[in-house]
Order: sequence, then C-alpha cells, then structure tokens
Amino acid sequence: MALGICRAVLITGCSRGIGLGLVRGLLARSPAPDLVIATCRNPDQAQELQQLKEQHQSLRVLQLDIVCEDSIRKVVRETEALVGEKGLNCLINNAGINRIATLDSVTAQDMLTIYETNTVAQLMVSKAFLPLLRKAACQDAIMGIHRAAIINVSSRSASMQLFFQNKKSEEVYPYRIAKTALNMITCCLAADLMSDGILCISLEPGWVKTDMGGSKAPLQLKETIPGILNVLANLREKDHGAFLDWKGEVLPW
Amino acid sequence: MALGICRAVLITGCSRGIGLGLVRGLLARSPAPDLVIATCRNPDQAQELQQLKEQHQSLRVLQLDIVCEDSIRKVVRETEALVGEKGLNCLINNAGINRIATLDSVTAQDMLTIYETNTVAQLMVSKAFLPLLRKAACQDAIMGIHRAAIINVSSRSASMQLFFQNKKSEEVYPYRIAKTALNMITCCLAADLMSDGILCISLEPGWVKTDMGGSKAPLQLKETIPGILNVLANLREKDHGAFLDWKGEVLPW
Repeated sequence: MALGICRAVLITGCSRGIGLGLVRGLLARSPAPDLVIATCRNPDQAQELQQLKEQHQSLRVLQLDIVCEDSIRKVVRETEALVGEKGLNCLINNAGINRIATLDSVTAQDMLTIYETNTVAQLMVSKAFLPLLRKAACQDAIMGIHRAAIINVSSRSASMQLFFQNKKSEEVYPYRIAKTALNMITCCLAADLMSDGILCISLEPGWVKTDMGGSKAPLQLKETIPGILNVLANLREKDHGAFLDWKGEVLPW
Repeated sequence: MALGICRAVLITGCSRGIGLGLVRGLLARSPAPDLVIATCRNPDQAQELQQLKEQHQSLRVLQLDIVCEDSIRKVVRETEALVGEKGLNCLINNAGINRIATLDSVTAQDMLTIYETNTVAQLMVSKAFLPLLRKAACQDAIMGIHRAAIINVSSRSASMQLFFQNKKSEEVYPYRIAKTALNMITCCLAADLMSDGILCISLEPGWVKTDMGGSKAPLQLKETIPGILNVLANLREKDHGAFLDWKGEVLPW
C-alpha cells in the first residue's frame, strides 16, 4: 500500500539518527506524503535537515522542545496552520535521549530526566495533537496511518519477556525502564483512542549505528528505515495497541 | 515452610493499608521473624503502628521518606545497627501513592511525582539496602526470603498483557505506567542480583479495601495478607524475577 495517501506526518527528534532517517525515507517514497513536518530542539543546528528542506517543498522544519509545554502548544498551532481542516494523519514520537547508568551508578535524577523526555513527553505531545489527529480520523473509516495514528518509538530493551531470554544486565537502567513505561502509554492510548479511530503502536526501530545507538549496533539505517516505513504503511486495526519491530513482527511486552 | 527463619524484614509504607496489614500478619505468624522493621513517613501520626509496637518487642518503627536520599541513608544506618553482621533478609518496597488522572486530566507533573514515589524511590531504597541484603545473602545458599530478597509491590493494572484482555481505560494513568516501569526494575534487579543470591520479584497484592484501594475493591486485607505471606514464605530460585499475585500465580508482563 502506498504511503502517499498519508497526507500529513509529524516526527519529533529529526536532527539526526532515526528521526532524520525517517524524514529522508518518507520524502524519497513514491508517492511521498503531501506534508512531512520534522521537529527538533535546535533547527538552526540541524544542517542535514535544513539541506533536505531546500530540496523538498513538502518538508517543514519546526522547533520543538518536547519537555516544554509552551513549545508543544506553539508547534501544535503551527501544525494546525499547515494541515488545516484535514488534520494530522500520523504523529511519530521519535525524540528521546539515553544516558549510561548501571545499578551502581544510576541516580534518582537520571531516572527522572530520562522518564520526563522518553515517556512523559510522548504522552504530553500525543495529548496536545489529539484535536488534529481527531480531525484527520474523521476523514476515513479504516484504521491506518492514512487516517490517524500515534507511533511511539520504543526499544527492544523495553521488553520484559525478552529480557528473560537474554538476562543481560545492560548499562541503560533509566532508558529501558522509561521505554517499558512508554509501552504502557501505548496500551493506555490504544484503549482510550480506539473509539476515535486513532491507531496507536509501540515501534522497535532496530538497534542501528547512530549517535545514540553507537558503533556496536548491528544494523544500519539504510536497512531499517525501509522496513519501518513498510510496517507503518501496512498498519491496520489488527495492529492497534501492539509492540512491533521494524520488520513488522510482534514483540512480547 | 515457616516464615520464622526470615530473621529480619523491613517494609516501607506501613502507616496503613497493605503495609500495616503485612506488619500485623508477620507479627502474628508462628514463629514470627525476629525483627520486623516498619517504616513510614510520619511515625508519630501512625497510631495503629505505635499501638502494635507496644505489644511486640520484635517490631521497630523507623521514619523514612522514600523520596529523600538523606532519609534513606539514615534509615539504612539505623537498620544496620539493628540487624548487625547478619544483615537484612527481606526488603518489601510497599510504599506508594496514587492520584486519579485520565488521559484528559493527566499532567506532566502528575506523571513525574508518581514515578518518583512509586518507581524511582523503590530503586533507590533497594540500592541503599544492598550492602545489608548482601550480608544476609552470605549466611545461606538457597534463595528465598530466609536468605535475602527484594519484594516490589506492584499492581495488576501494571500488566500490559492483561490490559488487552480487559481493554478498560482506567483513571490511573500515572499509577499504572509507573507500576509497569517498576516491573522492569524488578527484571533489572533480578538480572544484576542473581549472582549475589538476592531474590527479586514483583508482587501484585490484590485490590483490597484500603484508603488507596477504595470501597469498590473486591478483596479485604484479611483475605490477601495470609496469601501474600504464604507466597513470600515459599519463594525460591524458580520465582526469581517473576511477577506473582497474592495467590502465587504468575502474572504476564
């Protein structure tokens, strides 16, 4: 199914890594979405994103600090002006941070900072965009990103069941705990937004060689981005509330 | 198996509800633990706990605010003085708060406050007691609360898999999301503390009629507390890292 019928997409955390990869991938699809809104904290410093903007009229770059309520309100107003009465079809909550912290080294402040950025912010951004997502949801009857969807970018390390097949203590206490909590947000949103026809999933984007993923990562963006975009394009009601990896396989909680 | 051989137990959040119920239940067992340390934020206002103290020499009541690092350090020193070289056998992270918050009403501050108290604090308290738990773990070879254990009091509402059998949006966004994250803390601690012989589980204590559980709760403390104490008494290595309910049944993540 063509992604082109997803009219308007907004992605957070697009200055680099997976966010930037998703923007590139969406713009390269044929047909591409009419409007790709790429947000990041510091657009002026996001050189690659700015270069892409010069090449693609359908790309808009907006400033958004996801932990700042004023910033969220501002970007919602700007998005509303761009999408009009047809609303926003797809919100991809991709922005996130990491911090190395073991059982020995982890602090309460680490835990709170990462939770605020990787979990709470995704909920607050989703809430703020609900009016625009609901407008889009009214335009169609079949669930999918062509209609209205919230995609929470999670992590394989968030799966408690996979943890026990692996039993490795990794040095990302605050990160994996916050991503597990994000998965519960997906469940809660899926329950509450079903009647609106807004599809919600958690997406495991693969462990890729990026600034955050590091050099040990086994995958490259050029492998995972087409996979992710195919997964997104094919999302239907059966996937609502699921935890999917970049190949479309269901992951256990 | 008798709980009596669990020499020293510490429980947080004992001024009322499940915490107070666990203290009562432990003191009433035969044989009872040598030492039950009940902590709460305001011991002076915990009348029932103070009355119990007058009746039971094995009960000590200590002041602990679980979100305050100084308070945690102080209670660890006080506990060390009480337990000596034999260490602490069982830490029950029971303290927690709730706040009604729906998708519409939930705020970022709700999310952070509940996470700090119901998730981050459990990790910080557990970390602080590790030296005393490790001392106790050296005294035995078979895992269990007679040796060394961390019990994280979780909630059925934390299960993402059960959520989808139920699909009810409940008015406890920050609470259930924080408890899901607490379950991941149990997984992380289980992985990291296996080699120390410290048993870690998440425990679902049942939805009981307490100040927090409310009047709609289907269960009473007199039903669940004996169940919980039996589950704890029978914990062994097979249960390490599990999510168990008050009847001992494994819950899915």
